[in-house]
Amino acid sequence: MNVTPRVREILSYYESNNPGTKANLARLLMQGRLGGTGKLVILPVDQGFEHGPARSFAPNPPAYDPHYHFQLAVDAGLSGYAAPLGMIEAGADSFAGAIPTILKLNSANSLSTIKDQALTGSVADALRLGCSAIGLTIYPGSEHAYDMMEDVRELAEEAKEAGLAVVVWSYPRGGVLSKEGETALDVCAYAAHMAALLGAHIIKVKPPTAHIEQDEARKVYEKAKVGFSTPAARIAHVVQACFNGRRLVVFSGGAAKDLAGLYDEARAIRDGGGTGSIIGRNSFQRPREEALQMLDTIIKIYLGQA
Amino acid sequence: MNVTPRVREILSYYESNNPGTKANLARLLMQGRLGGTGKLVILPVDQGFEHGPARSFAPNPPAYDPHYHFQLAVDAGLSGYAAPLGMIEAGADSFAGAIPTILKLNSANSLSTIKDQALTGSVADALRLGCSAIGLTIYPGSEHAYDMMEDVRELAEEAKEAGLAVVVWSYPRGGVLSKEGETALDVCAYAAHMAALLGAHIIKVKPPTAHIEQDEARKVYEKAKVGFSTPAARIAHVVQACFNGRRLVVFSGGAAKDLAGLYDEARAIRDGGGTGSIIGRNSFQRPREEALQMLDTIIKIYLGQA
Amino acid sequence: MNVTPRVREILSYYESNNPGTKANLARLLMQGRLGGTGKLVILPVDQGFEHGPARSFAPNPPAYDPHYHFQLAVDAGLSGYAAPLGMIEAGADSFAGAIPTILKLNSANSLSTIKDQALTGSVADALRLGCSAIGLTIYPGSEHAYDMMEDVRELAEEAKEAGLAVVVWSYPRGGVLSKEGETALDVCAYAAHMAALLGAHIIKVKPPTAHIEQDEARKVYEKAKVGFSTPAARIAHVVQACFNGRRLVVFSGGAAKDLAGLYDEARAIRDGGGTGSIIGRNSFQRPREEALQMLDTIIKIYLGQA
Amino acid sequence: MNVTPRVREILSYYESNNPGTKANLARLLMQGRLGGTGKLVILPVDQGFEHGPARSFAPNPPAYDPHYHFQLAVDAGLSGYAAPLGMIEAGADSFAGAIPTILKLNSANSLSTIKDQALTGSVADALRLGCSAIGLTIYPGSEHAYDMMEDVRELAEEAKEAGLAVVVWSYPRGGVLSKEGETALDVCAYAAHMAALLGAHIIKVKPPTAHIEQDEARKVYEKAKVGFSTPAARIAHVVQACFNGRRLVVFSGGAAKDLAGLYDEARAIRDGGGTGSIIGRNSFQRPREEALQMLDTIIKIYLGQA
Amino acid sequence: MNVTPRVREILSYYESNNPGTKANLARLLMQGRLGGTGKLVILPVDQGFEHGPARSFAPNPPAYDPHYHFQLAVDAGLSGYAAPLGMIEAGADSFAGAIPTILKLNSANSLSTIKDQALTGSVADALRLGCSAIGLTIYPGSEHAYDMMEDVRELAEEAKEAGLAVVVWSYPRGGVLSKEGETALDVCAYAAHMAALLGAHIIKVKPPTAHIEQDEARKVYEKAKVGFSTPAARIAHVVQACFNGRRLVVFSGGAAKDLAGLYDEARAIRDGGGTGSIIGRNSFQRPREEALQMLDTIIKIYLGQA
Repeated sequence: MNVTPRVREILSYYESNNPGTKANLARLLMQGRLGGTGKLVILPVDQGFEHGPARSFAPNPPAYDPHYHFQLAVDAGLSGYAAPLGMIEAGADSFAGAIPTILKLNSANSLSTIKDQALTGSVADALRLGCSAIGLTIYPGSEHAYDMMEDVRELAEEAKEAGLAVVVWSYPRGGVLSKEGETALDVCAYAAHMAALLGAHIIKVKPPTAHIEQDEARKVYEKAKVGFSTPAARIAHVVQACFNGRRLVVFSGGAAKDLAGLYDEARAIRDGGGTGSIIGRNSFQRPREEALQMLDTIIKIYLGQA
Repeated sequence: MNVTPRVREILSYYESNNPGTKANLARLLMQGRLGGTGKLVILPVDQGFEHGPARSFAPNPPAYDPHYHFQLAVDAGLSGYAAPLGMIEAGADSFAGAIPTILKLNSANSLSTIKDQALTGSVADALRLGCSAIGLTIYPGSEHAYDMMEDVRELAEEAKEAGLAVVVWSYPRGGVLSKEGETALDVCAYAAHMAALLGAHIIKVKPPTAHIEQDEARKVYEKAKVGFSTPAARIAHVVQACFNGRRLVVFSGGAAKDLAGLYDEARAIRDGGGTGSIIGRNSFQRPREEALQMLDTIIKIYLGQA
Repeated sequence: MNVTPRVREILSYYESNNPGTKANLARLLMQGRLGGTGKLVILPVDQGFEHGPARSFAPNPPAYDPHYHFQLAVDAGLSGYAAPLGMIEAGADSFAGAIPTILKLNSANSLSTIKDQALTGSVADALRLGCSAIGLTIYPGSEHAYDMMEDVRELAEEAKEAGLAVVVWSYPRGGVLSKEGETALDVCAYAAHMAALLGAHIIKVKPPTAHIEQDEARKVYEKAKVGFSTPAARIAHVVQACFNGRRLVVFSGGAAKDLAGLYDEARAIRDGGGTGSIIGRNSFQRPREEALQMLDTIIKIYLGQA
Repeated sequence: MNVTPRVREILSYYESNNPGTKANLARLLMQGRLGGTGKLVILPVDQGFEHGPARSFAPNPPAYDPHYHFQLAVDAGLSGYAAPLGMIEAGADSFAGAIPTILKLNSANSLSTIKDQALTGSVADALRLGCSAIGLTIYPGSEHAYDMMEDVRELAEEAKEAGLAVVVWSYPRGGVLSKEGETALDVCAYAAHMAALLGAHIIKVKPPTAHIEQDEARKVYEKAKVGFSTPAARIAHVVQACFNGRRLVVFSGGAAKDLAGLYDEARAIRDGGGTGSIIGRNSFQRPREEALQMLDTIIKIYLGQA
Repeated sequence: MNVTPRVREILSYYESNNPGTKANLARLLMQGRLGGTGKLVILPVDQGFEHGPARSFAPNPPAYDPHYHFQLAVDAGLSGYAAPLGMIEAGADSFAGAIPTILKLNSANSLSTIKDQALTGSVADALRLGCSAIGLTIYPGSEHAYDMMEDVRELAEEAKEAGLAVVVWSYPRGGVLSKEGETALDVCAYAAHMAALLGAHIIKVKPPTAHIEQDEARKVYEKAKVGFSTPAARIAHVVQACFNGRRLVVFSGGAAKDLAGLYDEARAIRDGGGTGSIIGRNSFQRPREEALQMLDTIIKIYLGQA
């Protein structure tokens, strides 16, 4: 199929990457119901690692089965599916060719007392499992932030050479950051910008709040007279921080919430020029039919139909 | 999208390969108008190397431009496009994500006096260019056949580890083979079987004639009382020789010929259970509109509509 | 011999692994008196490293001899035998072909003050010693947990490429975990799930108690109204946490205990859908005849005969 | 074009380096309006990493776009452009051949609580992106200074072998240094000298103040009766500390300031024999036309025309 | 400086290459008096290897000195200078930054009895010497042609990864080729096409004669009714064979000849759409002033001024 003009335009932003990486970005951007629009809705299932299996899957027990998530992503017409090694290994053969996958190469867990992540997969794993991209998390602000950035540097270089795309989850935490500061507008935009500077192709951050954490940033915002009162305006600022829209940026839904809240968030992402949603717990912790209905509405929102 | 049951069945034949390789086979099998049927029509453009540019492209001068072939393969709804390094490099970025590509890793030319091929690309090239498969030619019968087989061994191993598929062009020539023997039924089946034994995922041979080259083979054929009088029966024998249908086998059209001949050949491939056609000169040496019409008919033949 | 349908089904869960790894899993699953049932009883002898030789072997002095354990595993009709490098080296030749072995690649000892393990073997060791699998321990919760996970990542990748299976001992300890929390249901299920996410083929955890360590998990358990009052129900939850039964999970017997307790535990593992027992001190600290009798009963329990 | 005698002279100072490194130094020294004079004005854009995107780019929003900076450097007739990986990747293809680039290989950020930098790029990245030099920051005085110096050692060695030049940002901070001491004359000269000793080709420091941090240094200065009352005299001392002028040394402008101050600083650098300016925020935080006018004046100052 | 639109267009043809390679192509295309026009005149000095020093340099003894050639290329305003290792090593430092260089990585000599070339340099040499490109010769038709092509494959891959450009000298000889056939139109176009297929960025061939060597090719030429009676038409056919103009193709002057013949040849190259001339013996075997005058006229021809 011909790649759409909008997707061609997006690929042109990744001007220094080889055709292999662009083809894998195209795979994500041409997949599912949003295929060709330049928008993405991705299913991530790393919550089992982050919060344990019961907190992740007990609300909807079929989700204990790795195949459930592959099938959900396919049936909902999503753009891709992201998970750690074991989850991908458990379904990559059954779903070969069905959905682009993103192999999460590092993982944290809530039994840990340190703000770091363990490497739990490799670029060679991503190739043998047929993944389109690798994914890595960094915690800007953490005392381990530089180690995590160096992991990104090394693995992203290897992935790009092998024609894979690179997704960076940038979640500020630790150090001098307040809890509120972790999702503050200035911090969120900063975290997204650093992921772009590290060479990420797709950046994942949390939707920013109206809180401003750093005094220096507040002064600049006030001086530049930019209004960040609406969620869409805040999304637009994060998009701007990602090379003025030259990098794809998706926003996580965070903890399970009510549908109206989710839909409003998606509309804000759309109206602010964000690339889309990466929506895990809100997808797989609902019964399958409800999840499909919810994802249908979110896709319609990105298609401008809801 | 869900991969069709027929494609799932075919992928199950490649049971020892990793999901990456299966995903790339799925890409070829789910692409274009034959996507999902288990049939393939592939455009190969290595004739420039084999016969020189004028003999290849002068009949239809727009074909001198590498982009022409990518676009033809996309517009005709083909399954994939195969070519040597330079041709793929010249369009892989413009057509990233548009069509699965097969990087031909060895090439011969008609200025050469030896029945061998030069390595002209690598698995790393295939990865950086976003190819789904590597392709290699062997000349069973040639004094260089074992060297070429050893190249297949080494590069196929590397490709499979990296999640790529492997296509082997198996063209008997040289040694004790008569010219007629190069396409003899027994020799063709033998060549296809050796490609399967070398670990090829997709095997490309020429449609066999009714000639039998080897006396020993003739005796067996006669004893087993198998009739090979029709082209479809001969195709069926080659398919049988490819692990009883567990390997995909495509047939080349050879030199440009009249349309009726081409269509009859495609029907014989279809009726004999072959996977499809790999059709170069007959595609790109015609004016584009004629080529599209011809490929449309061939696709319809494989779809059982012509 | 034909592999049984049940074992074939289990092997199919390891869909992304190569036939070498599956063959080694099949070796474990087709060995001994439980061969073909999908159940496993494994003899581990790493207690010498963990607790010193006297605490391990003085109760039954013949057990100081490495050959004792190989012979016990063979004579009892067990599925496999796991031990560190020196123990395997001391008997691998005499017992070559007699029993599948698992080379424990890391080891801790009770003279150490840190909650970590030393690497004490390699994948190359496992291959030269004819082992079917490598084994590694992680301590989720420990400040060294991420380093241990990264060892699993690296060595499991290497083992899988070489066609070996991977067994992960997942023993929570350290950090914020209370002593009681180390075997809490939520923590145990979490530890098992992380081993699955790291790509383990066989997961070894301790049988969970009814204690719940994390408040967040308790809320989920209560909300989901799942009863975990019986040992079998708790085992079933751990099995669920291992990809809904797509991963083999064996439970250790822990400290030597009375026979009734051991048998009840095995019945709970069986009734909860666990794969079986990995039973060290309770085997080799008894006189050989008593041990054989005990293992006979446990095997009968898994066979549904006791 | 012939390289000018002045540039030939400068290249002769790098007598132990290979012609590749000299050619890349020549590229920087022959580029733009100062080409051939031995003077340099470089645009660095690493402030997004250091201070976040809003503090860096909100004052002049077009600067959020990476192409903006490449174009500004070209249009202003500068000598080179320095930035971290993502910024270079986002424009290296569009501006291939237009301006020498310096890939910043390490980066710090103001969310971090430690005085270190993360490695965020490689020499291989610099080669594939067509850069003329790598850049690295060290923090003499910091508890991490030796790690950073060791990074310089390793990466500079690799870069020199590949024919690239090496730029070192030497910014004293941490340890026993007072805030005022970070720009003290003795400390600044010391920091510059250490960069030279580490093998840097181009050294970047802040313009020194008249403050003397170390008592030992003050004694020496007094004994030697050298006057450092004027900015030009202090620049001359730093130049002297850089192998008596055998190493190129550029000075940063620091925070945005008024034009008169900037011009005075440039005149002091010129009069003290410094190589030139590396001027980031003062360039890209002004509207483009103002920035071009300012850079025009600065270049004229170095040309002796203002 | 901004790269011209014409050069940007040419760079876009190398769509699969990294920015480093494009920057080096830009260096060649922006250098000298033809800088920015898309035309190239290159000085090659490998004749000492090919024919010995006396036959190469005795007609103009100052040319024995390697510096002579660097200076000639600079003073004549040429695009680049190509030579084997020793010649480049002997001047690369003195002329660092003055002229883009092409390191010839293989070399033949007239004392040899085989139609092959020896590898005499490496990609690492090219980097340490600051070269913009590597150069390799192949002899299509020779019994060693495939070995030479395999050298191109390996070294071109390495060069492209390091951001260098690749120039291939494609000189048919040996095997079934007649002496006249070595410069036959069909053979020349074929040789150029194979260099393009091998992934060359710049292709160097001899200007084709009106002779047609292969019967098969003659038939195609006649059938396609293309007239190749004029030198310009023949050049145009070779350009067409180089991916329809998507690859730069330069023509050698061959043996020293009279000025009128040289100028006519350059006009034919220009009128046929060739990229330019690579002109060795005709440059350095004349006295310097005559050579400069001749090169001035040739450059004017490419500028459309003569």
